[in-house]
Amino acid sequence: MRLRKVKNAIEILSQDKQYFVLNPSDFIGKWNEVFKNDNEINIEVGCGKGQFITKLATDNPDKNYVAIEKFDSVLVRTLEKCNNFVLPNLRIILYDALNLGEVFNTNEITNIYLNFSDPWPKTRHAKRRLTSSDYLNVYDKILVNDGCIVQKTDNRGLFEYSLESFSQNKWYISNIYLDLHKEKDIYNARTEFEDKWSLLGPIYKLEARKNPNME
Amino acid sequence: MRLRKVKNAIEILSQDKQYFVLNPSDFIGKWNEVFKNDNEINIEVGCGKGQFITKLATDNPDKNYVAIEKFDSVLVRTLEKCNNFVLPNLRIILYDALNLGEVFNTNEITNIYLNFSDPWPKTRHAKRRLTSSDYLNVYDKILVNDGCIVQKTDNRGLFEYSLESFSQNKWYISNIYLDLHKEKDIYNARTEFEDKWSLLGPIYKLEARKNPNME
Repeated sequence: MRLRKVKNAIEILSQDKQYFVLNPSDFIGKWNEVFKNDNEINIEVGCGKGQFITKLATDNPDKNYVAIEKFDSVLVRTLEKCNNFVLPNLRIILYDALNLGEVFNTNEITNIYLNFSDPWPKTRHAKRRLTSSDYLNVYDKILVNDGCIVQKTDNRGLFEYSLESFSQNKWYISNIYLDLHKEKDIYNARTEFEDKWSLLGPIYKLEARKNPNME
Repeated sequence: MRLRKVKNAIEILSQDKQYFVLNPSDFIGKWNEVFKNDNEINIEVGCGKGQFITKLATDNPDKNYVAIEKFDSVLVRTLEKCNNFVLPNLRIILYDALNLGEVFNTNEITNIYLNFSDPWPKTRHAKRRLTSSDYLNVYDKILVNDGCIVQKTDNRGLFEYSLESFSQNKWYISNIYLDLHKEKDIYNARTEFEDKWSLLGPIYKLEARKNPNME
């Protein structure tokens, strides 16, 4: 998501003491100290204006969340959203997803959420898509053994690319929806983007695991 | 696949002593006696003219195969194809896939191949598709614990239906190809249908497992 540039974004973020973590790599392997508990930790890569992650953090006080954004102007919007709530189980960081191995340790993350990521439609930009193999290798490293990537998108091209990329990288896919909003009985925290664009076409969803838990 | 009606199809099949098994339910739980070994057993549901299954049986003499067809006129064509080979590891049966629980025991089958099945495009016929939940329940029963369904189709609607149906029935999907013939380095036994129709559009492929083997 691109937003109008916010002046002094870093300064605004740095002044926050509740949600924003300025040097997240300081906490690699010890995010449980940040949250002061041993509950599971989930991350959203590309958190946009923060509607999704604040909803999840509100609904699941026994789970921890880290919202990640690489554009400072966008993360200011996330922070503004966070400030409407009191959520001790949520933090926000400014980081590039490709480098998340510097921020989280092996087995530190339970679920990774990718919502309406940039589809980068040109083939020469395919490696920039958040489900390309370089990213999947990073996610695999930080996820717990049966950890899960949950992806939603309205972009059919990105969804199909993801199906193939997960497959080629030997992830197992489950809970596929080709029209998520058709389903009435499943929990779905919506993003702002989803609220706005789902009227125009279907929302696709999948879950991917490297090592599914045997039932 | 529909073929011109073959006169006396059942008689033709019954006269064969090498490949055709007249009363397959007699062998439930003891197909190893039919094949006279304990090698894994794989089945193709809807074997058409038999090009795929005879190729697999030829290439893998250490595995057993049962080709299943519900139309006797079609199975005569399969038999004709079989008779071009000497394949002690192959049998053919005339049976409705919904009743395969009468023919194979729990854990008796390693892989199930579904190739270019009838897409039954009308919604009211969805239950007839070979990946509808009634069929998946049958497959689940006869497959070994980490057994696999391998599906190929040129029909995008059937492929998407299958993705959702496997997901809803809690199967894990892997090795998805949205344009199989684009891949140069993977083994692919082709069906007659595939030879003919792949020129017109992509061939889709997936594998589905109820309980994937952890790596």
